[in-house]
Amino acid sequence: MKPSGVITLSTDFGTDGTFSACMKGVILEINPNANVVDSTHAIKPYDINAAAYSIATSYCYFPAGTIHVIVVDPGVGGARDAVAVEAGDYLFVAPNNGVLSEVISENTPYDAVRLDVPSFFRDPVSNTFHGRDVFAPVAAHLSNGIGLTELGSRILRLNRIDIAVPTVEENCIRGEVKYVDAFGNLITNITNEFLNELCRSTSLIEIRIKDHVIYQFSDYYEQGKPDALIALINSNGLLEIAFNRSSAAQVLGIAERCPIVVTLTTKRNEQR
Amino acid sequence: MKPSGVITLSTDFGTDGTFSACMKGVILEINPNANVVDSTHAIKPYDINAAAYSIATSYCYFPAGTIHVIVVDPGVGGARDAVAVEAGDYLFVAPNNGVLSEVISENTPYDAVRLDVPSFFRDPVSNTFHGRDVFAPVAAHLSNGIGLTELGSRILRLNRIDIAVPTVEENCIRGEVKYVDAFGNLITNITNEFLNELCRSTSLIEIRIKDHVIYQFSDYYEQGKPDALIALINSNGLLEIAFNRSSAAQVLGIAERCPIVVTLTTKRNEQR
Amino acid sequence: MKPSGVITLSTDFGTDGTFSACMKGVILEINPNANVVDSTHAIKPYDINAAAYSIATSYCYFPAGTIHVIVVDPGVGGARDAVAVEAGDYLFVAPNNGVLSEVISENTPYDAVRLDVPSFFRDPVSNTFHGRDVFAPVAAHLSNGIGLTELGSRILRLNRIDIAVPTVEENCIRGEVKYVDAFGNLITNITNEFLNELCRSTSLIEIRIKDHVIYQFSDYYEQGKPDALIALINSNGLLEIAFNRSSAAQVLGIAERCPIVVTLTTKRNEQR
Repeated sequence: MKPSGVITLSTDFGTDGTFSACMKGVILEINPNANVVDSTHAIKPYDINAAAYSIATSYCYFPAGTIHVIVVDPGVGGARDAVAVEAGDYLFVAPNNGVLSEVISENTPYDAVRLDVPSFFRDPVSNTFHGRDVFAPVAAHLSNGIGLTELGSRILRLNRIDIAVPTVEENCIRGEVKYVDAFGNLITNITNEFLNELCRSTSLIEIRIKDHVIYQFSDYYEQGKPDALIALINSNGLLEIAFNRSSAAQVLGIAERCPIVVTLTTKRNEQR
Repeated sequence: MKPSGVITLSTDFGTDGTFSACMKGVILEINPNANVVDSTHAIKPYDINAAAYSIATSYCYFPAGTIHVIVVDPGVGGARDAVAVEAGDYLFVAPNNGVLSEVISENTPYDAVRLDVPSFFRDPVSNTFHGRDVFAPVAAHLSNGIGLTELGSRILRLNRIDIAVPTVEENCIRGEVKYVDAFGNLITNITNEFLNELCRSTSLIEIRIKDHVIYQFSDYYEQGKPDALIALINSNGLLEIAFNRSSAAQVLGIAERCPIVVTLTTKRNEQR
Repeated sequence: MKPSGVITLSTDFGTDGTFSACMKGVILEINPNANVVDSTHAIKPYDINAAAYSIATSYCYFPAGTIHVIVVDPGVGGARDAVAVEAGDYLFVAPNNGVLSEVISENTPYDAVRLDVPSFFRDPVSNTFHGRDVFAPVAAHLSNGIGLTELGSRILRLNRIDIAVPTVEENCIRGEVKYVDAFGNLITNITNEFLNELCRSTSLIEIRIKDHVIYQFSDYYEQGKPDALIALINSNGLLEIAFNRSSAAQVLGIAERCPIVVTLTTKRNEQR
């Protein structure tokens, strides 16, 4: 794959300190022409599920040949491997701890190597900051055109984490809140495809979350009346629960993992 | 206008998620040579006044031909237009909801188009994320040299929001706190020009905010004695109330919209 | 020194406002090819010690010829000088208030000039925002190849701040917590070198912080058992106190300046 020169950084390092700055410096020393893009440094510390979602919702908008570096790495310095992975049009550099589980499904073809060639690392390699000492330099070398297989030995299977998927019953889908965004919108793991299978556009439905019920889909936020919760399909094709101009998470006291159920119904609700 | 290649992003997306990353990816796919600059992603959610102030205090420091993208857009997906605007040396891409009201005054000449040519958008366009699907690709195409009028049909008048301006009476100016900065300094909407009209350098004045009174202007923060509130003209020519090395907002419990009055006085205050 | 084209920004401006955006704009107007890198804008307001630590832990990872701009500057507009400094492979632009005290030790050779040639500044120069009006333009001119000595008159000695160093007694080292990172890890001012002088690998030690005792060093975070505090040498060669996957700062209620003592002991602790 021809690298685009773009390298994105997704970490749980925060922006108070200089962790991400060190990574950028290391990359620019190896490839002065790299275009280093801060994706986010605010993934919840140690939260591999959040990292998996973060990269899954962003990687494909970058040019083909972009190198995505993901460092949410509670096992740094221990037994876990570091890997570089080519999948579709992109390259990924990350710990082998499941952070790519949403990008690469069970059936996605990919090439992966364990990063075991120290000449592509900083010297010495610390036990606590592989972002700077392993992932950044490897990404920079990839962006310089070093081939994936030069970086280490081939591995056949990446480690995976469990990603909660909705369960489908005869007349309902049971999912959960996957992510709360900056506006307090509740993004669920129920995809458009699940919904299309359950209901046609003429179907009557009930969406239940905590003790709230929504009886229809809206198209966009501003359709929401004051204090009326709305449901819509968001820009990633996911069912999202929101208020118009306020935080559903805050007002309802709902956080990630909160269950949500979409049920087919035959009664037209009066309050609809 | 010859584009400079610089594209700035000002949004209320926060930096926890990947909204801004998606915009950067979309831009770099269309123009790999674009220089995408994060201006701020921390504008208060839905706050069009704050967005208007944010862009007004930053746009003119960039090279001529810079494209400024502003996405504070509670009406996304609804009836509001998206626009591209050329004014002075700069291009702006934004919802037509008034975010440019401080950049473009009633008398500023400008060219504006409604973004109604879908071939410059991502396909499909979501109802919830025009930052990614409309504003980013349009900005990228502008930076590639696409002309303003190719992007849509000319509109004659941009929507505006009310920007609070001070009222001037015979012996006083009544304004308000417009913005609280990262240091807790209270930036008001009273400009240097208003003050010059009211008072000469030899005039005695009183500046009243909440139950505090200041009797003179300082030149810089460090002139402030411990626990003594100071008034100065800041780097944008605005009256600013501050403490030396602490947060006026926090200590005084003052937030945006708090009234402030500058009055000419004839008595020399003893505590001065 | 040949500039690398990279200019880093380390400030206490936060990311809510447009202070850092203005600096980037000013730099790009003077040098459109500059690669402006946000190091951090979240240094604690006015905290020169924190700024000194921040730049000291990041500057050396950038390419030789990088220009580091540090703006933590409570004395802006007053009597303090602004300086440009060449030390080793790097250039620094900052107020002369001690922010370089950890980068440049008493014995480090350096060249420094007082920034007193206004033609390299914006015109006019405000009293409250030298980041935009002095430091950014000077850094941009340096990146364009302007020589250090063209920017002002040579000064022989930079101002310094006191950096707390550990005290060494016969059987112990007394240090303090220097910085709390994004994970709540407690980074101390006790270096690897101090520890090596005190103890050999076979020595028995006690590390005391608040009312907690640690009896051994770990190699990496994941070695920590649940609820067991660990000590390790971090990626900067500093003694660090941490929990595996939680915040030592939060759990223990420990902040910066908290004392820590490493003592040689002869008793093997049973709870070890």
